[in-house]
Amino acid sequence: MKKQNDCLILNLLLAAALVVFTSIAAAAEPLPSWNDGATKSAIVDFVNRVTDENSPEFVPVSERIATFDNDGTLWAEHPMYTQLVFALDRVRTLAPQHPEWKTTQPFQAVLENDMDAVVASGQQGLIELIMATHAGMSTADFQAIVTDWFDTARHPRFNRPYTELTYQPMQELLAYLRANGFKTYITSGGGIEFMRPMTEEVYGIPPEQVIGSSIKTKYEIVDGKPVLMRLPEMNFIDDKAGKPIGINQYIGRRPIASFGNSDGDLQMLEWTSAGDGPRLLMLVFHDDADREYAYGPANGLADTSFGKFSASTMGEAKENGWVIISMKNDWNRIFSFDN
Amino acid sequence: MKKQNDCLILNLLLAAALVVFTSIAAAAEPLPSWNDGATKSAIVDFVNRVTDENSPEFVPVSERIATFDNDGTLWAEHPMYTQLVFALDRVRTLAPQHPEWKTTQPFQAVLENDMDAVVASGQQGLIELIMATHAGMSTADFQAIVTDWFDTARHPRFNRPYTELTYQPMQELLAYLRANGFKTYITSGGGIEFMRPMTEEVYGIPPEQVIGSSIKTKYEIVDGKPVLMRLPEMNFIDDKAGKPIGINQYIGRRPIASFGNSDGDLQMLEWTSAGDGPRLLMLVFHDDADREYAYGPANGLADTSFGKFSASTMGEAKENGWVIISMKNDWNRIFSFDN
Repeated sequence: MKKQNDCLILNLLLAAALVVFTSIAAAAEPLPSWNDGATKSAIVDFVNRVTDENSPEFVPVSERIATFDNDGTLWAEHPMYTQLVFALDRVRTLAPQHPEWKTTQPFQAVLENDMDAVVASGQQGLIELIMATHAGMSTADFQAIVTDWFDTARHPRFNRPYTELTYQPMQELLAYLRANGFKTYITSGGGIEFMRPMTEEVYGIPPEQVIGSSIKTKYEIVDGKPVLMRLPEMNFIDDKAGKPIGINQYIGRRPIASFGNSDGDLQMLEWTSAGDGPRLLMLVFHDDADREYAYGPANGLADTSFGKFSASTMGEAKENGWVIISMKNDWNRIFSFDN
Repeated sequence: MKKQNDCLILNLLLAAALVVFTSIAAAAEPLPSWNDGATKSAIVDFVNRVTDENSPEFVPVSERIATFDNDGTLWAEHPMYTQLVFALDRVRTLAPQHPEWKTTQPFQAVLENDMDAVVASGQQGLIELIMATHAGMSTADFQAIVTDWFDTARHPRFNRPYTELTYQPMQELLAYLRANGFKTYITSGGGIEFMRPMTEEVYGIPPEQVIGSSIKTKYEIVDGKPVLMRLPEMNFIDDKAGKPIGINQYIGRRPIASFGNSDGDLQMLEWTSAGDGPRLLMLVFHDDADREYAYGPANGLADTSFGKFSASTMGEAKENGWVIISMKNDWNRIFSFDN
């Protein structure tokens, strides 16, 4: 009996030590690339409140849904959206099969490297570029094309694969939320099938938690095997008012935390904030030209075609108490390759 | 030292006992409502092969995706689809606000309880009934309407809530797959927002794992709060060739197991079976008029407007080695309320 009691005590001590050790490990600096201050505190306080079973603001695990815009929120979107770089590269690759592109806009502008003219072609021009480069093959073939492209393409300023242009503080935030029982989703205006080949490896986000814009597909039997052919027809644009629609369509419940960086994320944050209970709403503000880019036009920064953050969005954010993340002040590291 | 060694041995014994006990618990009859035989063995063998790390057919947890049709696969679909019963009840409820329905088809047929005329109105008639009853309110209001309806509506033959009309063997299968690391999805031709209010409680399937047909929604600010208004316009039909499209759209990877019961599930099973590696494809065949219903027209059973299982689907299933579940022979219980 005595021996068993000793063992029991030893076991209890071991168990207690394990609990303490685990708590220390969890408490140990979960967001090392975030500077101490109000922004980081807003995150940690929110997570503590919703995960503490004794808190009146406790949220069960099943409801801990967090949605993240991708371009400009999780990775760089300048000098232009990564998917647009991909589309332009595809136009150059496919040009020999399309001699008519030499004299047809917006393709001619791409082939002549006239980016101003590409941008000037507007949404219609961009859709034409997308359809010419993203449709006409099976989903499996498109996945292979995207994967190959990510392996070889390099960012013009940082000279690294685009998949390394993710923000280290946001990677830590994703991991921190998941460690606290959150399910993390991407809700991007970018193409769903452009992102999915890399999100699991790059962000730890599986394909079923990626929401994005899409074109229609068609089920066909080719050589006795079923394929999904990608059609040159828009299916869904997951931007602005499309983001709450996409969230409802894919997730079917309201997030309790949402993260964006531009006017395109405004409605997502409105939708998330309108639910009952604790909420965390944050917008990344690109105010660090030295380490990344600086653009608004909010706060007098440069206007931009990619990831516009207008003064009115800044006003709505302040009015609602949403947290503005200053890349310059809140992040001690931008990329994992920063010193 | 001696005492510590004893404790170590005791701990190891306790750990070993725990492993043995857990194994016994897991091995203990996971599918009690399934009769022993080839059908049940097909399930257990498949699960053993894909979960055994030493098996050449081992599948990592992230790829263990299983998709289930709902109507006729997880719950009863006769004498008509549950959602159609809901739509007809809504027409009756809303009729006082629509005096014109008394003389307009297919509404007149509903109000006169002329089910043959309702069915004869075809897909166009059914869509009109759906639009008149499923659109024109916010997603939140629709959810409340559906929840109320499930609380009060009763199945005409079994006189129980429709949520009790689920098949006990399929409930056990869902639980068994999840206990083995599978993520279980519903992939139904039914309305996604009709199912979601009940799937978590009834099947243990959260809203984000429900795929179905949908109408379009519109983001609006009403009284200062954002809402998603349901529009009388089809967005997506998740049936037949729509099922692989929906699976790709929502999940972004191919299931390794799919379960259906009708011609509407054929393309889903084709799509699932076309992937590399082990696969489990099963079709529930309704051949038990005593305990549930019997319909085909495969195998000479009665033809039906709800959940048609044609001879050609039966032929394709046999050719491909898909498993046909005979409700009569493979299930010793149909509903949880059976003795």
